[in-house]
Amino acid sequence: MIDTVGLDADDTLWHNEPIFADYEDRMCRLVGRYLPDADVHERLIALERQNVAVFGYGIKGFVLSMIETAIEATGGRITAEEIHTIVGWAKEMYAHPVELLDGVAETISELESRYRLVLITKGDLWNQETKIAASGLAGCFDTVEIVAEKDEATYTRVLNRHDIALDQFVMVGNSVRSDIEPVIALGGQAVHIPYHITWDLEHSIISPHSNWTELADIRQLPSWLADQNRDRLA
Amino acid sequence: MIDTVGLDADDTLWHNEPIFADYEDRMCRLVGRYLPDADVHERLIALERQNVAVFGYGIKGFVLSMIETAIEATGGRITAEEIHTIVGWAKEMYAHPVELLDGVAETISELESRYRLVLITKGDLWNQETKIAASGLAGCFDTVEIVAEKDEATYTRVLNRHDIALDQFVMVGNSVRSDIEPVIALGGQAVHIPYHITWDLEHSIISPHSNWTELADIRQLPSWLADQNRDRLA
Repeated sequence: MIDTVGLDADDTLWHNEPIFADYEDRMCRLVGRYLPDADVHERLIALERQNVAVFGYGIKGFVLSMIETAIEATGGRITAEEIHTIVGWAKEMYAHPVELLDGVAETISELESRYRLVLITKGDLWNQETKIAASGLAGCFDTVEIVAEKDEATYTRVLNRHDIALDQFVMVGNSVRSDIEPVIALGGQAVHIPYHITWDLEHSIISPHSNWTELADIRQLPSWLADQNRDRLA
Repeated sequence: MIDTVGLDADDTLWHNEPIFADYEDRMCRLVGRYLPDADVHERLIALERQNVAVFGYGIKGFVLSMIETAIEATGGRITAEEIHTIVGWAKEMYAHPVELLDGVAETISELESRYRLVLITKGDLWNQETKIAASGLAGCFDTVEIVAEKDEATYTRVLNRHDIALDQFVMVGNSVRSDIEPVIALGGQAVHIPYHITWDLEHSIISPHSNWTELADIRQLPSWLADQNRDRLA
């Protein structure tokens, strides 16, 4: 029986990527004044791909990468005041309200009474804690794990820490790379609920797998879980 | 009986503050070329005091605050290339080797066989995990808790999570504000091992308290713990 549901947070419970995309657009427009023909987005992604291994995930690393891209792309022509504007965006991003996806509040409330809910989210500890508190959902989770990376080692550690057997667990999230692949590689089960945009660094393609289910909407999760447990009993 | 020892990491197990102080000096010299008479250090601390509530602790927030201070203090005269240099410092700081304080390796190894060791450190998840791995001490800890802030609520959560009774626990660290005050406020016991420099935002003054012990060196910890437990048995 599945009795524990692992839930991703960003773009699974609340909107996140559109905020990053919005500020990235602003940076591209800022730099675009100097370089109308440059693909600033491509430069930023290439630099983020390097920097994420140094800085980890989250707003501060993203903003440092935007500053670095802006300086390098313009050959140092961007002004200090413009860089000041980019630093200010970091503060705006932290202050951005948490907006739940449609159906999340009622679904989590429904699941909470039947399953042990474990929030597993990666990135910036400070920002994730703030968002969890602001979401109004904190009380619904049995435990919250904010981790540096969502890989096989991390899932193994989280499951061991809370005495969760792999066959009692399902991980639910929008990122194939972070929420689905590592759990399936461990022999576990995962539910992919795609979000309408995905950060380039989270793109991943794996072959369909019997342990991987795709749902269009989190509101389908309670009945899917009930069906799974019914099938296992039968 | 004390059977669980909470240990702070930065400037308790390994050197940290001197790395920040070094890069702060570099920033002050960089900005000092524009403003020979300005107290850039004071400006940075004042801004960090505001920004830490937004960014949290760690290298990335520190570097964003240095960039902001450099731009504001020079009225935007600092060049993009100089800001690029500051961004580069963030990467250097992440790559800095972990240097254990004298006596730490043998003391932790000695304590490990007798006590449950819990590492409780605040700040940047990514950087702390990297440093714990690089320290060679990871295997000595029963559990590692990287937290956003070390206050009463956090200690309560950590103790509850691991079923640690307050009277079986002692917290050991260099920061009165983060390692001593909140634990004593909860009614617990703490050991302060001062480090030779303290970040301005960690400065704190509390009255001497019977639950607060000061040791000059972590090598004194095993015999202090043994004395405590002997006294309690007597």
